[in-house]
Amino acid sequence: HPFFNNQLWQGVDAVGLAGLYLAHSLKTSIYTYEVAPVFLLVENAVLQKIQDLCGFTEGDGIFCPGGSMSNMYAINLARYQINPEVKTRGVRGYQQSIIFASDVSHYSAIKGASFMGIGSDNIEKVKSDDRGRMIPDELEKAIVSTKAKGDSPLIVIATSGTTVQGAYDPLDKIADVCEKHGVWLHVDGAWGGSVLLSRQHKYKMKGVHRADSFSWCLHKMMGVPIQCSVLVLNKKGDLLKRCHGVSASYLFQSDKFYGAGYDTGDKSLQCSRLADAFKAWFMWKAKGDLLLEREIDHKFDLAKQCADMLRNREGFRLLWEPECTNVCFWYIPPSLRNLPDGPELFDKLHKFAPLLKQEMMTSGVLMMAYQPVKDKVNFWQMIFSNSEFTHQHLVKMIDLFERLAQEIEI
Amino acid sequence: HPFFNNQLWQGVDAVGLAGLYLAHSLKTSIYTYEVAPVFLLVENAVLQKIQDLCGFTEGDGIFCPGGSMSNMYAINLARYQINPEVKTRGVRGYQQSIIFASDVSHYSAIKGASFMGIGSDNIEKVKSDDRGRMIPDELEKAIVSTKAKGDSPLIVIATSGTTVQGAYDPLDKIADVCEKHGVWLHVDGAWGGSVLLSRQHKYKMKGVHRADSFSWCLHKMMGVPIQCSVLVLNKKGDLLKRCHGVSASYLFQSDKFYGAGYDTGDKSLQCSRLADAFKAWFMWKAKGDLLLEREIDHKFDLAKQCADMLRNREGFRLLWEPECTNVCFWYIPPSLRNLPDGPELFDKLHKFAPLLKQEMMTSGVLMMAYQPVKDKVNFWQMIFSNSEFTHQHLVKMIDLFERLAQEIEI
Repeated sequence: HPFFNNQLWQGVDAVGLAGLYLAHSLKTSIYTYEVAPVFLLVENAVLQKIQDLCGFTEGDGIFCPGGSMSNMYAINLARYQINPEVKTRGVRGYQQSIIFASDVSHYSAIKGASFMGIGSDNIEKVKSDDRGRMIPDELEKAIVSTKAKGDSPLIVIATSGTTVQGAYDPLDKIADVCEKHGVWLHVDGAWGGSVLLSRQHKYKMKGVHRADSFSWCLHKMMGVPIQCSVLVLNKKGDLLKRCHGVSASYLFQSDKFYGAGYDTGDKSLQCSRLADAFKAWFMWKAKGDLLLEREIDHKFDLAKQCADMLRNREGFRLLWEPECTNVCFWYIPPSLRNLPDGPELFDKLHKFAPLLKQEMMTSGVLMMAYQPVKDKVNFWQMIFSNSEFTHQHLVKMIDLFERLAQEIEI
Repeated sequence: HPFFNNQLWQGVDAVGLAGLYLAHSLKTSIYTYEVAPVFLLVENAVLQKIQDLCGFTEGDGIFCPGGSMSNMYAINLARYQINPEVKTRGVRGYQQSIIFASDVSHYSAIKGASFMGIGSDNIEKVKSDDRGRMIPDELEKAIVSTKAKGDSPLIVIATSGTTVQGAYDPLDKIADVCEKHGVWLHVDGAWGGSVLLSRQHKYKMKGVHRADSFSWCLHKMMGVPIQCSVLVLNKKGDLLKRCHGVSASYLFQSDKFYGAGYDTGDKSLQCSRLADAFKAWFMWKAKGDLLLEREIDHKFDLAKQCADMLRNREGFRLLWEPECTNVCFWYIPPSLRNLPDGPELFDKLHKFAPLLKQEMMTSGVLMMAYQPVKDKVNFWQMIFSNSEFTHQHLVKMIDLFERLAQEIEI
């Protein structure tokens, strides 16, 4: 449905879906070369391509079941690099590890910290500016104060495209801070990482080549069928295998004739693992770099068109100029338009959003997400990640939104 | 390919594949009721069905990306139940947690212990008997000695169907021990849990209703397309949500009109999550309980036929009577048949296996797995999990195996 605009993924890409059918019809799991020789080589090719896009000269990588897991892998790798003994002995008896991420970063850092025995209290939420970009000076302050307390800075998670605002953290400046203090830099590009494909927009991720790791969900803006999430590393060597591997004797026999280096399953936390890479590879082969670039640029164009329209339309208030393809706005119903900015207006706007959402869901013609962020009460978010969405769709969708909104009394 | 017999999953189930096409063509992710209302209700129905099979009177559950993750979830839930503060404060400063599992249990406990900050050294590998079944007295000894050391017994992971031997741990006796010592009992039925569908074989899991949690991969013996792994809990209440939840404001708004109880995404570590439950539901609806039972029984019959054939066939030596559908055996080439049991024979058998595997892979007509376990050198494993595999296939496969084996000089 073209007007499903609820989350970061929209539409169904026919080419990607064909790739999915192929991969799944063969029902394979890609832990070893013997069970999935072709898929395994395809996975390597896609990982190499992504490393190239990042400018990682020597690297490694793995596909994960979702962006959350990719980020957790990065945390685990950073921990293992500082102290490999944690793998066998656990974190007790070692320094407390601290994770740094912006105050609008994805919640997977929190889930990960809890799951991995670090504890969610041990995340330093670095202040972001009003656009949602991490402030490098605040990061440095937080690292210095962590060290002063005797704790160990574990990893900095920078975000390229935050979930709600679509903000890009300034990677180059953050990399300076990480370099100075010797801290692992992970770039969470789950949502916005697709700009790496666009000559026009990739400047937003300037400095990514200095990161230690990068995660990206190709099932979001790229339109690959869910799931297709990758983690790539900017390091040669077998860190992934050493960190995650347990060399199960029934899968990863060292006496195989083809050399155990081809078996990548031990790099993963999972055992049965889908051939997600094939879907991306199939789309890449079918569409080519140029068409994929054009699709990404098209989505950014739509976001710009949408922002331009809303800026000049009565009753709509654009919250920020979009950096990614998220367009965030308030809709102020006619009855509230004479109210000045203040608690009364914001209280009513906050309550208006769930009512309108209910109208959307019950009418079934349009889906859009609302949420509060920091001091901003419930606002709406148009997101562009469907390559078949057109300017005509956009105009119709805003009209539809307004019509539904007008049916609600507040 | 009927003779792909390399791992725990074989063949492609047409009904399951159709379910997969349907679920994936809609490209949805089931974190909230608003984005996947039907799939979410289907997931609940399948979880309820599995709780009923286990005899869990009040329960909860979630689908996970693979059996390894299901087991890790169980570990995290047990930890959270003992001490909810670990979620926010991390494991430092608390007692060392110890995981108990048999010495032939699945490696996911090791991966999980490392990833979750517990440390793989803190797994007590409880001795199993020569069939691979955990010895309850040994478990009790291990728990007592853990307590004496001042450490905290965290969880007992019993296995219903070990990966290689297909052994079923004696759940009732293990439950006695767990009850006595107040330790969480998790049953890892990833492979052998399918006997719950069979009136003839479910006695192997007697006592499962006393477990705190149970994990099962429906993509293994049940034949659902990969992946389809479930964790169910024998507890009412919102333990999963409290343990894993972070209430992201952009997804799980508390002001939704339909009540946030329908949104299950926060029970998971993942964000984007596939509608895996639908594949199982679709097969269940299409085939019904009886046909599924017949398929499971058929696989067990095949294993019995296979064991009977090998027991009487020259050059083959059955290692154990099969408890599950894994048939483990040595093949002794003609040139070695006059050797007595001893280092020379075993050394040669151990080296023979990878040579034969190479022959299988390069000829492309047959795939079978070999591995060593404890004191047994490399042996072969026939596994039955393809419902379209017949007695005729079996005969042909053993002949083929022998023919390939005879081409190898040792």
